[in-house]
Amino acid sequence: MALAGAAVAALLLCATAVQAQSWMPPPESTRCPSKWGPTDERGSGNHMRAQTLLNAVKLIKTGEVIELAHPLNGAMPFFGTRRFDVHMKRTFMNQPANERGSNEELVVSEIGQVGTQFDGLAHQTHRNSFYNCFKIDDIATRTGFSKLGVEKAGMFFTRGVLIDVAGYKGVEILGDNYEITVEDLEGALKKQNLTLQPADAVIIHTGWGKLFGKDNARFVKSCPGIGVKAAEWLIAKDPILLGSDNWPVEVAPNPDPKISLPVHQIALVVNGVHLLEQLKLEELVAKNVYEFAFIMQPLKIQGGTGSTVSPVAVR
Amino acid sequence: MALAGAAVAALLLCATAVQAQSWMPPPESTRCPSKWGPTDERGSGNHMRAQTLLNAVKLIKTGEVIELAHPLNGAMPFFGTRRFDVHMKRTFMNQPANERGSNEELVVSEIGQVGTQFDGLAHQTHRNSFYNCFKIDDIATRTGFSKLGVEKAGMFFTRGVLIDVAGYKGVEILGDNYEITVEDLEGALKKQNLTLQPADAVIIHTGWGKLFGKDNARFVKSCPGIGVKAAEWLIAKDPILLGSDNWPVEVAPNPDPKISLPVHQIALVVNGVHLLEQLKLEELVAKNVYEFAFIMQPLKIQGGTGSTVSPVAVR
Amino acid sequence: MALAGAAVAALLLCATAVQAQSWMPPPESTRCPSKWGPTDERGSGNHMRAQTLLNAVKLIKTGEVIELAHPLNGAMPFFGTRRFDVHMKRTFMNQPANERGSNEELVVSEIGQVGTQFDGLAHQTHRNSFYNCFKIDDIATRTGFSKLGVEKAGMFFTRGVLIDVAGYKGVEILGDNYEITVEDLEGALKKQNLTLQPADAVIIHTGWGKLFGKDNARFVKSCPGIGVKAAEWLIAKDPILLGSDNWPVEVAPNPDPKISLPVHQIALVVNGVHLLEQLKLEELVAKNVYEFAFIMQPLKIQGGTGSTVSPVAVR
Amino acid sequence: MALAGAAVAALLLCATAVQAQSWMPPPESTRCPSKWGPTDERGSGNHMRAQTLLNAVKLIKTGEVIELAHPLNGAMPFFGTRRFDVHMKRTFMNQPANERGSNEELVVSEIGQVGTQFDGLAHQTHRNSFYNCFKIDDIATRTGFSKLGVEKAGMFFTRGVLIDVAGYKGVEILGDNYEITVEDLEGALKKQNLTLQPADAVIIHTGWGKLFGKDNARFVKSCPGIGVKAAEWLIAKDPILLGSDNWPVEVAPNPDPKISLPVHQIALVVNGVHLLEQLKLEELVAKNVYEFAFIMQPLKIQGGTGSTVSPVAVR
Repeated sequence: MALAGAAVAALLLCATAVQAQSWMPPPESTRCPSKWGPTDERGSGNHMRAQTLLNAVKLIKTGEVIELAHPLNGAMPFFGTRRFDVHMKRTFMNQPANERGSNEELVVSEIGQVGTQFDGLAHQTHRNSFYNCFKIDDIATRTGFSKLGVEKAGMFFTRGVLIDVAGYKGVEILGDNYEITVEDLEGALKKQNLTLQPADAVIIHTGWGKLFGKDNARFVKSCPGIGVKAAEWLIAKDPILLGSDNWPVEVAPNPDPKISLPVHQIALVVNGVHLLEQLKLEELVAKNVYEFAFIMQPLKIQGGTGSTVSPVAVR
Repeated sequence: MALAGAAVAALLLCATAVQAQSWMPPPESTRCPSKWGPTDERGSGNHMRAQTLLNAVKLIKTGEVIELAHPLNGAMPFFGTRRFDVHMKRTFMNQPANERGSNEELVVSEIGQVGTQFDGLAHQTHRNSFYNCFKIDDIATRTGFSKLGVEKAGMFFTRGVLIDVAGYKGVEILGDNYEITVEDLEGALKKQNLTLQPADAVIIHTGWGKLFGKDNARFVKSCPGIGVKAAEWLIAKDPILLGSDNWPVEVAPNPDPKISLPVHQIALVVNGVHLLEQLKLEELVAKNVYEFAFIMQPLKIQGGTGSTVSPVAVR
Repeated sequence: MALAGAAVAALLLCATAVQAQSWMPPPESTRCPSKWGPTDERGSGNHMRAQTLLNAVKLIKTGEVIELAHPLNGAMPFFGTRRFDVHMKRTFMNQPANERGSNEELVVSEIGQVGTQFDGLAHQTHRNSFYNCFKIDDIATRTGFSKLGVEKAGMFFTRGVLIDVAGYKGVEILGDNYEITVEDLEGALKKQNLTLQPADAVIIHTGWGKLFGKDNARFVKSCPGIGVKAAEWLIAKDPILLGSDNWPVEVAPNPDPKISLPVHQIALVVNGVHLLEQLKLEELVAKNVYEFAFIMQPLKIQGGTGSTVSPVAVR
Repeated sequence: MALAGAAVAALLLCATAVQAQSWMPPPESTRCPSKWGPTDERGSGNHMRAQTLLNAVKLIKTGEVIELAHPLNGAMPFFGTRRFDVHMKRTFMNQPANERGSNEELVVSEIGQVGTQFDGLAHQTHRNSFYNCFKIDDIATRTGFSKLGVEKAGMFFTRGVLIDVAGYKGVEILGDNYEITVEDLEGALKKQNLTLQPADAVIIHTGWGKLFGKDNARFVKSCPGIGVKAAEWLIAKDPILLGSDNWPVEVAPNPDPKISLPVHQIALVVNGVHLLEQLKLEELVAKNVYEFAFIMQPLKIQGGTGSTVSPVAVR
């Protein structure tokens, strides 16, 4: 009995341990080299082939364009100390006879990481190690990264799939820190009669975007979104990117208080899958557009960690 | 008599030279309201309709993407005091157990007016008057313009036509201040067996882009390009934009020393036709791609005068 | 009767007019040229003569230095969209054998107008007209003003006089929009047994500085301070500057709702008297230091409107 | 004998090695804790005591002020990518009846390290170690350093001594990479009939400042200045700071090609002695003012590495 009692205690201990086990980034030996090769700097961006584009073109039937980006201004929600400041200069009046006035603005912003934004592969690390095990000390300079820069991403023109999780759950907005489950994704896709394919731009509707510019404090304080399990399920489908209408794509803070935004590491560091944050999805959702041509052109910021973008859906 | 005839001819020539009336912006009564209506803020951008996009889609055959933008960095040529500075922040190491490092950059730039750039309608004036006769005092604020902002431009997805003037003239690069004539445009188009249509993105190859990042001082000092007559001929074709591989689309300085960049006023102020500057055209030219789907997504900078962009040609 | 009625009507009209009369900037004919001459750009800064400095030196007895500036950081109160952002760059490690690491910060700030700040004469206008009737269109450039720039101010080293109005009124902090009267100033000076002299740096303690960095929202929403009458009384004493621990030296909003910060115009535009805002006065007040050598070195920002400063009192 | 021969050879080898030995930063065990105590963050700034100020006041006889700072503008020489950009905002016209126009400028600059500039103790390291052995990882944040920030420096008001080395050598400007020797310093001081005392602001005239704003390319390419030996000799005199009219106080590049700006480490890291660069010394030299009251007020940039300053000499 004493023995049995010890066994039970051990089992309990074990169960507790398992329960307490946080997700941790896998060792470099497991995740490197990446599936795109040991020198690859583009990760999921490699999906962007001619056939990918041609497949997306077939989804264009009416020519209707639905914009997925919020306007860039100082009233956007910002994470931490980030900002987007436009300083309009005084009008410069050229002297010649045609009296040509010229205007231009100085913009001061973490422009890779504000507004509707695309995350490049230099944005995140595990300790000192990026996607494909590039090291900070090897590639960081004061003016950008010598590898993994967003200028290498190129245009995205691929099949887009909207997974309307809020709609599937019958709510306008998912709960403030609701973790989207694999079942939610499967259920919503089934309801929409769609399946995911490699190279898809997968876009998840949480409803959180309704707070953008309306209740910025709440918008950045937390958000519903995918967690570790849903992210791993989605990444197994081999997408070109994961996007959402919340600020980090993933649930925040993570239900596991020991880890910080793990999906950022799972996507960007471990798998080289891009993220796309703070999408404007109201029109897409209202029109029930679940499958479309997705087009996005990140700025070619040399050595940059990401880019604010103006993506669209076309059907 | 022959002498007398020559004298008369000389006098006539002289009179013409003296007459040499500079181009001047037409009075507001002539140019306002714009053909797009008295409250219009989009000018040629109104061409961007569903059918325009569908027509462009038909030009996509192979799915090949040709990028038309230079990378954004401090080694680009800059006009005047403009700059593009990327200040990479120290890596922020989040405390939780997954040791997630985060990188982001502060960008300080006249981002509407650097690199491969799209000119919006708030960029230029005649005296105090913009396109459609909006007035500076009515729409200028310290953080942008309340009308005509580039956030209203939307995506461009239309037929693109490359007019290879350098190729037509049999040179790598047109002369440093060569003014492209109407005959050059007609000749090049005829050689390419193409005609312009309304809503076209018209792109002119001067070869000047070969100096970009290589000889920046020469790049911005002058350039070959269209002058007043060629601009008016092109705008009569009703394009969605005029683009080129030089810095101002037009010849600079203007052969007429009394006026400063008149094509900027003809296009942006008088006709509301967008400009697209500093395109990277080498690949397009090398592959003889003269007709293609042109795709461009300006940033949605609220109240902005323009946007650096990453346009592409797709065929 | 008719006569009496008319007289009453006239009196009523007069009373209404008097009541309604706001302070207004005097016409240029009255205020220009300034008392310092028609080309003067330094205004009250002309008081800074050798004898002024020698007089101040006599006030130095113990060598004790009392700092009057708040530290510059992002937690300061800011007016409108102003900011003070320090972006520390990545450590630059020089290659040679001595392994010398170098740090530097990019600062983005309206640095002439944040923190403890000195107002230059290019800061304010009446319509298009500055101090000494310089005109905006004549002196404004995109990078500063060609006249009246703060680089011309030089060091201030003069007699400083603290007028402890809060102490005189027996409160820690004057009311949120209390207008300091001439009687307050006279009473406080009498209590302190001091009289004002030409070239004094006159510093008014309202207690409002206690909110600096503690309740920033309240700090900038309103403040106690001098109004039109007290300002005119002080300026008649011919000071080198007027300073205070609130954000605009003067009461805000002005009790007369028809006018905006009139003391800014009375001091800077009409009389060319400098202002010094957001002083840290707690130590000076606690030690009852009412007369001292005042030392301040504005940055020499060419064409600038002002300068954040680190003034001190020495006794 | 063979043995003796070997010993001689060894000695010769050793001598050569010693000769070839570059200066290297001493180990932490030697330089920490600093002479100002193990938690000290002010280094030589601790000299700034009441008596120091009183001693300096005694040097003020005529009240004449000689400015030692260059104006801050875009035409200054800059080291590397540093800059000083003033972006004047559009005039803001307040609505009320007094028509008050307001001007302000956005400044974008490495403001701790441009123009006439004061080097704080967070500016330089040996590997990861600062003055008093503070470590980068312990005190660096994205917005400044939590220790050693320039906001702790306070005002400098002390005896200033000009050592006119160029004058002593009978030249206008010392050679482009002339290393000032101990003999030069001793000779110049003797000629000037002065000796150094603890707490002095020691200012060295090389003549290099004549190139400031005139030949910026040459100004920053190299410069004459003190080397390792002269720096160690000066620091043994216990100064409050070492200043000069060149860009790094010290000779650059160092005659020993294996080390980079060693005086920066000797002064800032090893001894905690401040540096003051790019002084404007022409007037001081022209007037033969060798001893004076030196006054300087660094900005209180929290966590900053230095500050552009407007120091003066008063006699």
